[in-house]
Amino acid sequence: MNDRALRKIVVGLGGTPNGYLREDGFDIVVASEVMAILCLATDLKDLKERLGRIIIGYKTDGKTPIHARDLKAHGAMAALLKDAIKPNLVQTLENNIAIIHGGPFANIAHGCNTVTATRTALKLADYVVTEAGFGADLGAEKFIDIKCRMAGLNPAAVVLVATVRALKFHGGVRKEDLNQENLAALELGLANLEKHARNIREHYHLPCVVSINHFSFDTEAEIALMKQKCEALGVQVIVAKHWAQGGEGAEDLAKAVASLVDTRPGRHQFVYDENDTLWNKIEAIATKIYGAAGISADPKVRQQLEQWSTEFPGYPVCMAKTQMSFSTDAGARGAPTGHHVHIREARLANGAGFVVAIAGDMMTMPGLPKVPAAESIDVDENGQIAGLF
Amino acid sequence: MNDRALRKIVVGLGGTPNGYLREDGFDIVVASEVMAILCLATDLKDLKERLGRIIIGYKTDGKTPIHARDLKAHGAMAALLKDAIKPNLVQTLENNIAIIHGGPFANIAHGCNTVTATRTALKLADYVVTEAGFGADLGAEKFIDIKCRMAGLNPAAVVLVATVRALKFHGGVRKEDLNQENLAALELGLANLEKHARNIREHYHLPCVVSINHFSFDTEAEIALMKQKCEALGVQVIVAKHWAQGGEGAEDLAKAVASLVDTRPGRHQFVYDENDTLWNKIEAIATKIYGAAGISADPKVRQQLEQWSTEFPGYPVCMAKTQMSFSTDAGARGAPTGHHVHIREARLANGAGFVVAIAGDMMTMPGLPKVPAAESIDVDENGQIAGLF
Amino acid sequence: MNDRALRKIVVGLGGTPNGYLREDGFDIVVASEVMAILCLATDLKDLKERLGRIIIGYKTDGKTPIHARDLKAHGAMAALLKDAIKPNLVQTLENNIAIIHGGPFANIAHGCNTVTATRTALKLADYVVTEAGFGADLGAEKFIDIKCRMAGLNPAAVVLVATVRALKFHGGVRKEDLNQENLAALELGLANLEKHARNIREHYHLPCVVSINHFSFDTEAEIALMKQKCEALGVQVIVAKHWAQGGEGAEDLAKAVASLVDTRPGRHQFVYDENDTLWNKIEAIATKIYGAAGISADPKVRQQLEQWSTEFPGYPVCMAKTQMSFSTDAGARGAPTGHHVHIREARLANGAGFVVAIAGDMMTMPGLPKVPAAESIDVDENGQIAGLF
Amino acid sequence: MNDRALRKIVVGLGGTPNGYLREDGFDIVVASEVMAILCLATDLKDLKERLGRIIIGYKTDGKTPIHARDLKAHGAMAALLKDAIKPNLVQTLENNIAIIHGGPFANIAHGCNTVTATRTALKLADYVVTEAGFGADLGAEKFIDIKCRMAGLNPAAVVLVATVRALKFHGGVRKEDLNQENLAALELGLANLEKHARNIREHYHLPCVVSINHFSFDTEAEIALMKQKCEALGVQVIVAKHWAQGGEGAEDLAKAVASLVDTRPGRHQFVYDENDTLWNKIEAIATKIYGAAGISADPKVRQQLEQWSTEFPGYPVCMAKTQMSFSTDAGARGAPTGHHVHIREARLANGAGFVVAIAGDMMTMPGLPKVPAAESIDVDENGQIAGLF
Repeated sequence: MNDRALRKIVVGLGGTPNGYLREDGFDIVVASEVMAILCLATDLKDLKERLGRIIIGYKTDGKTPIHARDLKAHGAMAALLKDAIKPNLVQTLENNIAIIHGGPFANIAHGCNTVTATRTALKLADYVVTEAGFGADLGAEKFIDIKCRMAGLNPAAVVLVATVRALKFHGGVRKEDLNQENLAALELGLANLEKHARNIREHYHLPCVVSINHFSFDTEAEIALMKQKCEALGVQVIVAKHWAQGGEGAEDLAKAVASLVDTRPGRHQFVYDENDTLWNKIEAIATKIYGAAGISADPKVRQQLEQWSTEFPGYPVCMAKTQMSFSTDAGARGAPTGHHVHIREARLANGAGFVVAIAGDMMTMPGLPKVPAAESIDVDENGQIAGLF
Repeated sequence: MNDRALRKIVVGLGGTPNGYLREDGFDIVVASEVMAILCLATDLKDLKERLGRIIIGYKTDGKTPIHARDLKAHGAMAALLKDAIKPNLVQTLENNIAIIHGGPFANIAHGCNTVTATRTALKLADYVVTEAGFGADLGAEKFIDIKCRMAGLNPAAVVLVATVRALKFHGGVRKEDLNQENLAALELGLANLEKHARNIREHYHLPCVVSINHFSFDTEAEIALMKQKCEALGVQVIVAKHWAQGGEGAEDLAKAVASLVDTRPGRHQFVYDENDTLWNKIEAIATKIYGAAGISADPKVRQQLEQWSTEFPGYPVCMAKTQMSFSTDAGARGAPTGHHVHIREARLANGAGFVVAIAGDMMTMPGLPKVPAAESIDVDENGQIAGLF
Repeated sequence: MNDRALRKIVVGLGGTPNGYLREDGFDIVVASEVMAILCLATDLKDLKERLGRIIIGYKTDGKTPIHARDLKAHGAMAALLKDAIKPNLVQTLENNIAIIHGGPFANIAHGCNTVTATRTALKLADYVVTEAGFGADLGAEKFIDIKCRMAGLNPAAVVLVATVRALKFHGGVRKEDLNQENLAALELGLANLEKHARNIREHYHLPCVVSINHFSFDTEAEIALMKQKCEALGVQVIVAKHWAQGGEGAEDLAKAVASLVDTRPGRHQFVYDENDTLWNKIEAIATKIYGAAGISADPKVRQQLEQWSTEFPGYPVCMAKTQMSFSTDAGARGAPTGHHVHIREARLANGAGFVVAIAGDMMTMPGLPKVPAAESIDVDENGQIAGLF
Repeated sequence: MNDRALRKIVVGLGGTPNGYLREDGFDIVVASEVMAILCLATDLKDLKERLGRIIIGYKTDGKTPIHARDLKAHGAMAALLKDAIKPNLVQTLENNIAIIHGGPFANIAHGCNTVTATRTALKLADYVVTEAGFGADLGAEKFIDIKCRMAGLNPAAVVLVATVRALKFHGGVRKEDLNQENLAALELGLANLEKHARNIREHYHLPCVVSINHFSFDTEAEIALMKQKCEALGVQVIVAKHWAQGGEGAEDLAKAVASLVDTRPGRHQFVYDENDTLWNKIEAIATKIYGAAGISADPKVRQQLEQWSTEFPGYPVCMAKTQMSFSTDAGARGAPTGHHVHIREARLANGAGFVVAIAGDMMTMPGLPKVPAAESIDVDENGQIAGLF
């Protein structure tokens, strides 16, 4: 239901026959707690239990939660999703198998595919590669601290995907100049990649390899500089050209990853202990992963976090922060330090089993195109549909 | 989207990013103009044209209509419905074919299945029986004056379905006493059936047969009385027991219908001429079919009808009246005469191609059960769904 | 609070601290029940009792009324109005006394000044003239059936105010031609005045005099025709020119009225008995005063009226009908007969002590000027205000 | 209009005749920009100009402001307020004159009485004492940086009003124990008073005297401790008992103030320069007056402040912060240092001529009593009102 006018609505107008007047809203599917639940549920039984745990409001005392199960809604919800929880097998253009399954937002949700898909893949294949949304400060952190923790997964290695373009951007280059060689800016911007790489090794204790998503205007000198800088950190850099050459273009990368996996040193670590308070969990992420000097919040938010730490011990934190910067300021490029992370709001996703901490003035809902996609969709007399892409 | 709280809503709260604040609402599918269009469209091309004709509002001058096609929405809408317009073949418990396709309301829409289904059936079978919703004052009238007129269908005979129970109710019996024999009340209530039968013959010039939908507590004497009264009108009465005996229980009825069809006298007639004004069309239905003395409306409604008569000549009228009585008063049983039909509102369904005339204080939306059906729906660990029926 | 945007609002958005979300609205002062109450209250004690009787809603059972007194709001309301209930003494340009006090609408309220003003005047003067809003079918009817009945007033005579212009309009003349002599149209239009005059005499048993509110373009022949026609009914016609000549211009009228009052025949009568049902009261007004053939209403409205007839026996009816015609059709000029009065809604004004019957599609709220009056209001540096008139 | 349900509303429901649907709200009078304007306006002409400058919204480009004067509303608004701007002369119980005039909130407005009242008093009396709302971190700061700056006032001395109770509270005592002597807590809490006193002298360069608002349970030892501590700072402390003894109880205080005024050293200073940016102005207040380590804000708020710094150079800042603490955390008592002031929102009051900076999670609207005051208000038959206090 992707209509921005439905985000914030008043329903139940027209008196008693139309129910109680209330403020409400539609979320897009990927932003809903139901999507996060579908992606974290281990099976149909767990799915139904999590759906039943969703808190849909509070009694008039303002404290006692009302769960979806209190309304007896979880059975019907699970029935609707009974097929959706089954992983979706598709194939690549080269007829290799892939599973595309689940799409929770990487800001107010955890940004990874479903646990059922990952587990299925782990049973079927020798090596499983999965994606985590946004930069590694968000994607990798949530993959490990939320998904791996909940599902007992044990990743063996990390692929950090980077582009020369993006690193030049972090080095201060304007968007319109990104296609031109700029070694000075690249060197500056590499601080961003280095921080990500250090995070992976120091805080997760995982080996990693950097995959350069190659663009045709990347220069030899730029690639060389990246290799030199990363190798100084002990991180291998591989140029991947699968966008042009298909599987062959990623063969070196695959071999490097396989080699890391085969020689994996042991179990990964988490950024924070599950028994810690929510405040300390947020602080750990902010200071260790984001390089922040500290965190702050208005007393009301802080009290909320304290209360939930007691009521829901063990819940991980799902950070909602801009993906444009390690900090909460989308304009702060590179690897800023000494910045301050202000938590303006906390939300409980009780079915998903985590607490969302919203940092900075980010949108928790995507924008929509100026021209609706529907305008170009059409069907002819023979039922042939046009304009979908 | 069957949630009464969504009938009347305010959307777009929260400022500019969420669009324009406006009053809006969700209709249930069967009450939407889209359902009426799907049921009247002759093919995909006609469907798209009709969807494009839907008037979704007026410009700020309050006069110039804005159509779905002005928003370029009709192509995408038709694309969504491209499979829905294809008739649905199902089978009965005795493995006979049936087509279940389309379900427009019988009050604010025309209450018949799709034109594509009827036409498909006419190509495949020797005899086609189709249902028209509510009493014959609504169902038969709309089937003939709207659907047959638009689709050029030529029905050969009418089956009037009646129950002894309902006729006793029309004769004044209270609901809790309907299962007891009451010949006096039945005789009184038969006035209702007689009026329906006369309408079919005098106004549509069609032969008809009455099918008594048999109940186990109908008495011999009651059946005999019904037969006697109807045959006095020249209308055959047949007791149908298919509810208990399957196809065999309706064999006599089928033979009688086939016989009427085989000896059909000629073309049917309409209640009103398509070139008449909307006011006169409503008056014709009210006086001829409902037995009313006349119609009335507030000047604003009357002006609206006049304007639409000019702008949309040829549009039939879709009456929205209670199905409990020939009159607009649900409590007036039997075959009331001399009553007055007050049109309180007129609505244009430009895609469907008719004007809805709302008579009396009827609900244009169905109520919902006190306990949501979802409460009893559940799914077990093996994906087995329970509680759907 | 005369802002049309406040007529229909949703309040209490923003969650618990802002109270319960509900649909609400502001009425302009003259349309509120409080104004009707202020005008009908006999003293401060009666005012407080009436305010306490206002029904502000119903309990969740949909039946049990909640009164202003249940909220303990009536004391504070009465305190606010304690000075407002005291009549307002002003003087005319000729230094005669007048009381201007109270202004209830003449459609959804009863359209007369306060009972306290009328009683005060009756104590102070030998002759008291008071105004009743809109045509005599509304103004006189409500003055007598509502105000006089409730306050025990006993009027002695009626002044029917007419203009030659308005009667020509009732005779079919277009607005732009009203300033030209048209005896044929005037004769036709006089049917309207005659019906009013007959109503006064036959239904209220009161003597009346017609006062022609003179315009400079009224011709001798037109005045003569009016006199002739009215005198044929036994009603004296007097041309009043106070708009030009002040008190002197109304001297003849005053003498005629005084003469009627001094020779008054006895007590007036009411159009309906207070013990009758609301339905019959409405029917009496419609058939006797409006010349209608009958009344109708949807069953829901009729049931509402029946229920209130039982719960509130003795309450008079306050008709809300267009002032442009005896009928509910603003375009039906003259003295139409045989028309039908459809009651589309009934409202209880429990504090005022009457039931409003809304007939036809009238506005119960006045429109506003295209350009807000505030635009021309200003104040200069010395505090001198401009643009009020 | 003190009804919490009116704070956030949707108006204009019901279609075109009721105007445009929009989100709106009522502020209580003291929180409205109109009150701030009335209090800062120097005369009727300035009042009208300021009212005309109010920005009521932006054009659809989201940038171009629409002022009250663009709607030609300011003339009528000024006309309504033409008497309100005139100072209100009242007398005390001892028949001394006082002026009570204007009441802007001390959080989202500047918390002082009107400029016209202060100027009038300065013309009439040798010494004028005026009050500034909340603690001196808010009241004195706004009085000097906003009111004195705008009106060119030149205060001669400051009276810091303190209570032993409040200082013990700042020293950590629970509310229920405040009436008992606690010298240790008092000593701790005095840090709060000392910070205020230092602020007055160091940042405003004004002499000050502390007035202890005496309570009967203040002990000799407590008073002595306060005197000792303050005099160590060079600030005189005087016990004022006017609550019990009337003017006589404040005589010592009055003499002390008069003495300070008569020997005043020169002009006061401001906390920030009017040509500085808004960001720097906020930072100056936070670090100098509140003892904060620094300020922060989300990028959106910061950009807003930058833009307004350019568009409205010279506008002072009106801080909206809790009055319970020097910091934004109402629970941080005494004189906290090193804290962080997060600006969560900035609002332009263009008519008042300042920018409001909202720090922390404070209410900008007062709560309401659980039991409406109206419940106890009543009027008897003689018009005697009860229950107002």
